[in-house]
Amino acid sequence: MGIRETLLESGAVKFGYFVLTSGKKSDYYVDIKEASTRPEILNAMADAISLKISAKKIAGMELGAVPILVATALKTKIDYVIIRKTERTHGTNKRWIGEINNGEKIDVIDDVATTGGSILKSVEILRSHGAVVENAICVVDREEGAKEFLKENGINLIPVITVSQLR
Amino acid sequence: MGIRETLLESGAVKFGYFVLTSGKKSDYYVDIKEASTRPEILNAMADAISLKISAKKIAGMELGAVPILVATALKTKIDYVIIRKTERTHGTNKRWIGEINNGEKIDVIDDVATTGGSILKSVEILRSHGAVVENAICVVDREEGAKEFLKENGINLIPVITVSQLR
Repeated sequence: MGIRETLLESGAVKFGYFVLTSGKKSDYYVDIKEASTRPEILNAMADAISLKISAKKIAGMELGAVPILVATALKTKIDYVIIRKTERTHGTNKRWIGEINNGEKIDVIDDVATTGGSILKSVEILRSHGAVVENAICVVDREEGAKEFLKENGINLIPVITVSQLR
Repeated sequence: MGIRETLLESGAVKFGYFVLTSGKKSDYYVDIKEASTRPEILNAMADAISLKISAKKIAGMELGAVPILVATALKTKIDYVIIRKTERTHGTNKRWIGEINNGEKIDVIDDVATTGGSILKSVEILRSHGAVVENAICVVDREEGAKEFLKENGINLIPVITVSQLR
C-alpha cells in the first residue's frame, strides 16, 4: 500500500467538513499522531521518510515528531536528537536529548508542516549549537506557506506527500 | 551483548560519585534517555522489554518513556498509548494519544523506576478510562521503593534489570 492510501485508510488524513482548534474551517483534517500509535502505520511513514534523508543524524521536536523520529532512526540506524519544547529549569539545562556536534549535518523530521514555524524553531536551536541544517522532511505538507517560509531561511522542505497529492 | 553490558558500556548507567539534581549524593547515575538516541542501544532495550510484555497494548508517559515505548511497539507490532504529562488546555482535551478501550489490558512501560510515583500516575489515568493495568515494565529499577509502593496499588513492577544486578 502506498503512503497516500495508508494515510487515508488509517484516518490520519480525512476530507470532509472540519472546524480546527483555531476556529478556522477546513475541508480536510490531518492527525498523524493518533495514527502513529499503530505500528504498521508508523512503519509505513518511517519507510517513506527514510527515503528522503541525506544527513547522518535526524532531529525533531517533542512530542509530536518523536514517534516518527524514533521509528525512522531505528530503520536507518542513525542517531537522533529530541529538541525540547521549552528550556528546562531543573536538571541538565540542555535544550535537547542526544548529541549535537559542531559542523554536523542534521535533517529535521516532523509529522506535518503548516506554516513552517515550529520546524524553523527546531532548526534555529540546532544551528545555534553548531549543526548544519539544510533539509526538513515531513510526512504531510499542508501547503500553507511552509515551503516558501523555510526556503527564505535556507531550509529545503521535503514532504513525503502534499495535501494536493492527497486530494 | 547482554542488557547489563549494553547499559554500562553505553554510559546509560554509570558508577562513581554523583550529585543528583535533587541535591542527593549517589554512587551511581542512570540516564537512559541520552543512550536511547542511539538506535542499537534503544533496540537492545526494546528487545529486553518485549520479553516481559503480556498485554496486547502498551502505554507510557511523555517524554521519557516514548522512545522505548515506540521501539517496543514496532518490535512487538502492538499498539501503544502516550499519556500526556498534563491536561491539555486546547485542541482535543484527551489526556492521551492512542486508543484506550474499556476493559482492555495494558502494560505500562518506563525507562527507570525510582519511587514508582510517575508509573502510578500513568496507571491511574489508564484505569480511570477503563483500562486494566496489572504490570509495569521498566528498564532499570533503582530499588528505592517502587516495587513495594506499586504492589500496594495492585501493580506488579517487572524490571529488565535492577541496580543491584548492575553492580
